[in-house]
Amino acid sequence: MTPERTAKLIQTLNRRQPDLTVITDQVHKPRNIAALVRTCDAVGIPNIHTVTPKEGYQFNGTTRGSDRWVKTQNHASCDDAIAMVKSQGMKVYAAHFSERAVDYRSVDYSQPCAILMGAEKHGVSEAAAEQADEHILIPMMGMVGSLNVSTAAGIILVEAQNQRLQAGMYEQSRLSESEHRDTLFEWSFP
Amino acid sequence: MTPERTAKLIQTLNRRQPDLTVITDQVHKPRNIAALVRTCDAVGIPNIHTVTPKEGYQFNGTTRGSDRWVKTQNHASCDDAIAMVKSQGMKVYAAHFSERAVDYRSVDYSQPCAILMGAEKHGVSEAAAEQADEHILIPMMGMVGSLNVSTAAGIILVEAQNQRLQAGMYEQSRLSESEHRDTLFEWSFP
Ligand SMILES: C[S@@+](CC[C@H](N)C(=O)[O-])C[C@H]1O[C@@H](n2cnc3c(N)ncnc32)[C@H](O)[C@@H]1O
Ligand SMILES: C[S@@+](CC[C@H](N)C(=O)[O-])C[C@H]1O[C@@H](n2cnc3c(N)ncnc32)[C@H](O)[C@@H]1O
Repeated sequence: MTPERTAKLIQTLNRRQPDLTVITDQVHKPRNIAALVRTCDAVGIPNIHTVTPKEGYQFNGTTRGSDRWVKTQNHASCDDAIAMVKSQGMKVYAAHFSERAVDYRSVDYSQPCAILMGAEKHGVSEAAAEQADEHILIPMMGMVGSLNVSTAAGIILVEAQNQRLQAGMYEQSRLSESEHRDTLFEWSFP
Repeated sequence: MTPERTAKLIQTLNRRQPDLTVITDQVHKPRNIAALVRTCDAVGIPNIHTVTPKEGYQFNGTTRGSDRWVKTQNHASCDDAIAMVKSQGMKVYAAHFSERAVDYRSVDYSQPCAILMGAEKHGVSEAAAEQADEHILIPMMGMVGSLNVSTAAGIILVEAQNQRLQAGMYEQSRLSESEHRDTLFEWSFP
């Protein structure tokens, strides 16, 4: 491990956002999960939550190695995933087409929050949508009814990043000392 | 064709942005092109330009039918594609990792412009990058060196949409009368 490499790992850890996460509600295409994980690494999200799709999936997309930098916790149900992030003090923003949806730029991503993304065909399940604090939408001007889920996630997460950059949240480490130390160890000696 | 359907087609045409486009420089994965085309429809982009990859491709991804609403013109070289959009009075903004790259939010997307996206492995070719008016980048805070190309395009195009929404550019038709009429005919009787 060169000193430059160690410095890069530490810089990345110093920018990690432990109070920002994503829940995927039965997203089942590996390539969509892969592109999403890659965006999460780029935005500084250390952990995400997936929910086993009824239809099943195998994890085999091109994460460009980003699954090494982002931990994925799988849950049997979306209820479980939502309960966990709520117990960690996070709000849940569901990317969901509904009457109560607001523009995705109008919510505050600098507070602890989880972005809930829906499945390719069925979107966010109704039971999960009900538990969300907000429903958010990216305005669409065309004929097609929805964006690709990993594209939509990227657009929302980079808005979150922009807000957190504005708020200076990437300027000093936000991990606990032990998380910082343990992750540095893991990353250094895989 | 129901009156509601016709009204939807007209509303979509009224929001089309003929002076906003995308060039893909040898992007070769069909699923990336497919997700991109779907985003283009959503942002109101009527035409895009692709450049035949040296490695070849077959067009077979899930566009969710959006290739019906967005015309794709293929070019033998990126020089040809750039020459065409320049002859139409557009600036070229290359999404490209370089010394001269600026934050993607700092450029003006309300003027006529083409967003140039690079290939999965090799990015934007040097010859094409040199012809671009600006190089733009989405800031990245993680370990991985780049985003998925269709995710990156989505982030940039929705910023363009936001700027154009602000500027009132979706409020009245921007197509010529003949384009509006001919496209409505095509869409009504496919
Ligand atoms: C392909 S869409 C699902 C479409 C599904 N038919 C529906 O009505 O929900 C998959 C997921 O991508 C996200 N998504 C797609 N387009 C979006 C948009 N314009 N705004 C916010 N989220 C979007 C949502 O989380 C959605 O559940
Ligand atoms: C997978 S990347 C190519 C990476 C390639 N190794 C390089 O260095 O250019 C494919 C394309 O996605 C776009 N892209 C990826 N990440 C980006 C970012 N952070 N900002 C702007 N464009 C990006 C660029 O157009 C890039 O050429």
